[in-house]
Amino acid sequence: MSTTWLLVLDLVGIAVFASTGALVAVRKELDVFGALVLGMITGLGGGVLRDLLIGAVPPAALVDSRYLVVPAVTAAVVFWFHPTVGRMEKQIEVLDAVGLGIFCVAGAVKAHEAGLDVFAAAVLGLLTAIGGGMMRDVLAARVPVIFREELYATPAFAGALLAAIVHDQGWPVGWYAAAVGVAVVWRLLALTRGWVAPLPPGTDRG
Amino acid sequence: MSTTWLLVLDLVGIAVFASTGALVAVRKELDVFGALVLGMITGLGGGVLRDLLIGAVPPAALVDSRYLVVPAVTAAVVFWFHPTVGRMEKQIEVLDAVGLGIFCVAGAVKAHEAGLDVFAAAVLGLLTAIGGGMMRDVLAARVPVIFREELYATPAFAGALLAAIVHDQGWPVGWYAAAVGVAVVWRLLALTRGWVAPLPPGTDRG
Amino acid sequence: MSTTWLLVLDLVGIAVFASTGALVAVRKELDVFGALVLGMITGLGGGVLRDLLIGAVPPAALVDSRYLVVPAVTAAVVFWFHPTVGRMEKQIEVLDAVGLGIFCVAGAVKAHEAGLDVFAAAVLGLLTAIGGGMMRDVLAARVPVIFREELYATPAFAGALLAAIVHDQGWPVGWYAAAVGVAVVWRLLALTRGWVAPLPPGTDRG
Repeated sequence: MSTTWLLVLDLVGIAVFASTGALVAVRKELDVFGALVLGMITGLGGGVLRDLLIGAVPPAALVDSRYLVVPAVTAAVVFWFHPTVGRMEKQIEVLDAVGLGIFCVAGAVKAHEAGLDVFAAAVLGLLTAIGGGMMRDVLAARVPVIFREELYATPAFAGALLAAIVHDQGWPVGWYAAAVGVAVVWRLLALTRGWVAPLPPGTDRG
Repeated sequence: MSTTWLLVLDLVGIAVFASTGALVAVRKELDVFGALVLGMITGLGGGVLRDLLIGAVPPAALVDSRYLVVPAVTAAVVFWFHPTVGRMEKQIEVLDAVGLGIFCVAGAVKAHEAGLDVFAAAVLGLLTAIGGGMMRDVLAARVPVIFREELYATPAFAGALLAAIVHDQGWPVGWYAAAVGVAVVWRLLALTRGWVAPLPPGTDRG
Repeated sequence: MSTTWLLVLDLVGIAVFASTGALVAVRKELDVFGALVLGMITGLGGGVLRDLLIGAVPPAALVDSRYLVVPAVTAAVVFWFHPTVGRMEKQIEVLDAVGLGIFCVAGAVKAHEAGLDVFAAAVLGLLTAIGGGMMRDVLAARVPVIFREELYATPAFAGALLAAIVHDQGWPVGWYAAAVGVAVVWRLLALTRGWVAPLPPGTDRG
């Protein structure tokens, strides 16, 4: 039951990430195939990268076909109904924050289980959460938005670091929910209050 | 004899893909080293990515030096004789379609042999066929052409899916030729008839 | 003692590479997080890629936290003091040449130890030296500078090839210093004398 719940959470996160990939594809006027690939890479790229780096091959995303079908179907739906989906940008941003929280915590725990120390596990948790979006932006030939426009990675790293500490210390399982909560709430506050990360000294935010 | 034949086919596909990488380098006015790297990555990138994802390391391309020498020499020749090679664009497109057919089938079979299910194997077959070209375009700082301008991936996925089914069901070996044929013919028809994939609803093809 | 010395050399190379990543981030007006990620990927990307390709997972950079802390701290320092660091471009280029020499030799030796032949090991040594910078430029949405503007990879390949031969033949350990020296001196001569690699026939250097 608990495993089912985790799988559902994971697939929801993948679907939301995939929808952001498909929306970027629509805005760049890519064809339906471009939307499918961008959606799948955005949804799965971070987890696949983590699995490669800890030697968990084939990656989970290739062993259970639901991990391939969910982002593919999501991307196709977003492609065909993009005027409707595009109007739901606020809702997607909220769901995306939830996906961020799930991915950073799940990634950090999986990396720590694979034997990495707390700091390295937190870095891999961060990579799980942001890797897919970075690949999406590189394939769309643009500088990743999280490098400049969005406070996105700091909440993910905070959640991942807390989760790695919880796993290392064997704290009760409720602490994982707290780690997810830290990332999600911080990200949502950044969105609603317009928080951004510091620019280089001497630079004006255009 | 049959293994030799397969190796030759594989090296021909790698050489053709490498020549497209070197031509992109020439058009971007990169230097001879840029042409060598773009050629090698275009020729070998898809197969290396597949091998990483199924845990077949070191990848085949690093174990047999012919896999490194063929795309390097091809890229150098294209670089120095690019005015001549550039005029052979039609012939290169036909050979490229053949490379696409070989790679998607070989990639799907190798992934299925590694224990992936039919659908995941087909996805990896597709990735084998298009991964190198995607890396080429990312390194040339442009959105991959197969995301927008070319009907390229759908034939590759069809061929890969058929090959994975053939391998799964143990059908006679001639079916692999059929899978290659599906991808090649579909791709050539797309080229000669100008078939393209659907754009997002509401978008005009510029 | 010797191992400590090698570790120090390796960390110095990583720090210098990381500082080039952070400087690119500052010039692109990325935020502090973008500078950290670009710095870490530039410093560690080549070695991580090599480790993935020879199956040495988790990569060394994730097993010893010093490999994560050094480029992160370097990138943060460069970000905050970029006007000062930016004026040290000449010194950074010299240190970068030293990093290039260390990385190409260390990478080739590690790849040859993993069982690759001399030529493949040299290619991986090259990849170790240039992989991080290529990732930096891709993430900054530009064509890698080493594909066009800088004679950078040829010295690295020469050093890597010599190192792989030395390892293969079991020559005395001083030869590794010679391999580093070949790469460093060649690179510095290219910098000071403006040597560049050939462009495609018929192309003017703009």
